[in-house]
Amino acid sequence: MEKERPRSREIMTDLYELTMAASYFEQEMFAPATFSLMVREYPSKRSYLVCAGLDPLLDYLESFHFRPDDLEYLEQTSLFPDKFLQFLETLRFTGEVRAIPEGRLAFCDEPLVEITAPVMQAQLVETFVINSINLPTLVATKASRCHYAAGERRLVDFSLRRTHGMDAGLMVARSSFIGGFIGTSNVQAGKIYGLPIYGTMAHSYVESFDREIDSFRAFAKSFPDNTVLLIDTYDTLAGARKAVTVAGEMRQAGQSLRAVRLDSGDMVQLSKQVREIFDESGFPEVRIFASGGFDEFKIQKILTSGAIIDAFGVGTKMGVSADAPYLNMAYKMVMYNGRPVMKLSSGKVSLAGPKQVFRQRDEQGFFRRDLIGLLEEEVADSESLLERVMQDGKRLFPPQPLPKIQQVFRNEFSLLPETYKDLEGNPSYPVKITPRLQALQDQVRREIGEKELGLG
Amino acid sequence: MEKERPRSREIMTDLYELTMAASYFEQEMFAPATFSLMVREYPSKRSYLVCAGLDPLLDYLESFHFRPDDLEYLEQTSLFPDKFLQFLETLRFTGEVRAIPEGRLAFCDEPLVEITAPVMQAQLVETFVINSINLPTLVATKASRCHYAAGERRLVDFSLRRTHGMDAGLMVARSSFIGGFIGTSNVQAGKIYGLPIYGTMAHSYVESFDREIDSFRAFAKSFPDNTVLLIDTYDTLAGARKAVTVAGEMRQAGQSLRAVRLDSGDMVQLSKQVREIFDESGFPEVRIFASGGFDEFKIQKILTSGAIIDAFGVGTKMGVSADAPYLNMAYKMVMYNGRPVMKLSSGKVSLAGPKQVFRQRDEQGFFRRDLIGLLEEEVADSESLLERVMQDGKRLFPPQPLPKIQQVFRNEFSLLPETYKDLEGNPSYPVKITPRLQALQDQVRREIGEKELGLG
Repeated sequence: MEKERPRSREIMTDLYELTMAASYFEQEMFAPATFSLMVREYPSKRSYLVCAGLDPLLDYLESFHFRPDDLEYLEQTSLFPDKFLQFLETLRFTGEVRAIPEGRLAFCDEPLVEITAPVMQAQLVETFVINSINLPTLVATKASRCHYAAGERRLVDFSLRRTHGMDAGLMVARSSFIGGFIGTSNVQAGKIYGLPIYGTMAHSYVESFDREIDSFRAFAKSFPDNTVLLIDTYDTLAGARKAVTVAGEMRQAGQSLRAVRLDSGDMVQLSKQVREIFDESGFPEVRIFASGGFDEFKIQKILTSGAIIDAFGVGTKMGVSADAPYLNMAYKMVMYNGRPVMKLSSGKVSLAGPKQVFRQRDEQGFFRRDLIGLLEEEVADSESLLERVMQDGKRLFPPQPLPKIQQVFRNEFSLLPETYKDLEGNPSYPVKITPRLQALQDQVRREIGEKELGLG
Repeated sequence: MEKERPRSREIMTDLYELTMAASYFEQEMFAPATFSLMVREYPSKRSYLVCAGLDPLLDYLESFHFRPDDLEYLEQTSLFPDKFLQFLETLRFTGEVRAIPEGRLAFCDEPLVEITAPVMQAQLVETFVINSINLPTLVATKASRCHYAAGERRLVDFSLRRTHGMDAGLMVARSSFIGGFIGTSNVQAGKIYGLPIYGTMAHSYVESFDREIDSFRAFAKSFPDNTVLLIDTYDTLAGARKAVTVAGEMRQAGQSLRAVRLDSGDMVQLSKQVREIFDESGFPEVRIFASGGFDEFKIQKILTSGAIIDAFGVGTKMGVSADAPYLNMAYKMVMYNGRPVMKLSSGKVSLAGPKQVFRQRDEQGFFRRDLIGLLEEEVADSESLLERVMQDGKRLFPPQPLPKIQQVFRNEFSLLPETYKDLEGNPSYPVKITPRLQALQDQVRREIGEKELGLG
């Protein structure tokens, strides 16, 4: 009954992490290594990143261990010596993690997470590290763009049906909340993360009644305190008029229709007409909720065109970050046994050495520029972004409540100059490399040239 | 310790599934409903779909039940009456499922799955039904396009680090195998699905040694039967020459270097040069494996330009279906209590009534066209695609082994005329609606017009 058991996350990994580990074991290479996680380039139209996913990553690192049935499977592959598998049995993560906290803004090339641990440990966690930060950062960023486009209007995550699996649905609910959403339709996310959950009815509900108005009445009876009627099943304006009838009946019963939902059609035109129908019928308190293919671009477009919407259900396009469904994110070794290392592969050069990111602000506190420097550097008038969050394999702080992380995001976002919030992603925020970090790169590159390419 | 418990999939659902269910319960609406799952339009450049995801869906339906802690959470939300929650406690899925089998080709508008069950059951599973078929179908389709572009060359799934979560990684490994891949780097997928697993070394491994050639020797020592050397860490051609040295040492020891991997740079130029280096040094048996940003377009492009590659690692772009990260897939009620239903929402009109898909072939057996008709229709000289796979909540067949499903795909794909395999997605395969199905639509639309819009 595999399906009823939790899947171990330790073998949720690329095989090469294990073959490399086996070879390190055989070579008796146990020296510490530092790996750096960063985004190499902005995806389409982005100009900043909202950090997310760190807490689940720390959870993974803290509980890292191979299960007996995993080791049994690895044995069956006949790829690994017994001694190595015995070693894995007791292997735990004992390293240090420095990271930019969730909810903070970061930019390309900046290390989001740096892990220092015996090389095998730092290597074995690679697949999970990237996987656990990639989607959350992508989605928190996308959500923040929707949030920016929507202004004060409220946004709810409606993406679960088309997220890439159920894990993704949870990650999206959590990350979109960090990026400014008020809640989610995802019930499991409500349970696990304590997020507010939202949802009322689908078209099928309306269709299962003989007449549309019967479905409205039935729903109002079941949920008098939380009635949102979906009015576009057959014809939005006809649906709105029936909703007015039901709103009147509810008012007579001392209740109140909360909102109607539009899910198709010309949202600018329809929202104005529906608003007018309710206002003229004496129900100005009934809100208009819109869903159906929204993302930051569609939100901005219809609001600019005068749509009258109070809240949005934002689904698929946010939940899969449709215009940019992955980050060019890499987890690269930057130091081994005290020796700074880099790769020179075409288009994928990494920055050698453990690092820090220094943020400088203007007189009003707005972000002015970031500097990427050596870990041990000090940069005047700047704030260091990477914080030590794990030592000897143990978290240094308890998990932050999500509303607090959202508050971090809101605060950060308010300090990002408006120009960098542009949905087209122009211009880029300035990120520079310090002279000392640059000097290290030049030196390492020269040494590699001498050793590997017969130069110099 | 939530993290160590399997998450129940029943509350991996949108809240509105539960609010509708509560209202159905209150209204005592327990009549059977039929829902149809279909794709409304092809994503970018696609002209067919490879069906995948059915087996995990049947697994979910067969074991459907709410857990005590889920019901406790639902109680805490104060949204639901106690009687309804007590009812959920014993609720199981008792319905019927008809579906197009995994590995078969399907086209837009065709029902991929039809579920008939008491309305609440058929509705409650909606979120999971869409979620469990959406990504697998997307990925199996993307994988089949890579497979087509690669011709006889072998393809391995390398996507795990950038799939949307770990669940997605498993879904992608399974679905890409259905679509023609030979295996995956995902160790957990190897364990769960019995898929062949692949992988050797990363750049970090090379960097952790003082010299590149030391890393090659160490790896050959650890894995003499499966040595694939990554040669682009510093300079691909210099790396290839060092790999020749190691290949010579291995040959002396009675071993053999299996392959080298290229992960960056101009793959056409580099693959030819590396091939020449090995051929001229007397190692024509060493294969060239390529990875790094591949999808069907990049594979086709470099092969057309003369690249000499034996196998590909295909990662992110396949694993997130980067150019089309979601399907416009919907699960729509088509019949309630014997009454065919449809929605008329702008741009989202559904086809009323339970259906069947009929496939017609030419004299050589190639697919000629599909017809969507009523379930009870008979269409001469055609094959019916939807098969009954579950009755009374029980599977009618055991799960198929994945190699067998891949064989179904290979067979189907060989019968699809070449013109529809074009990577640009032109032209579309012909799918027609039978006159009887069309007549039903006209009738239902007329009835809705009369009842809901005061027409006629």
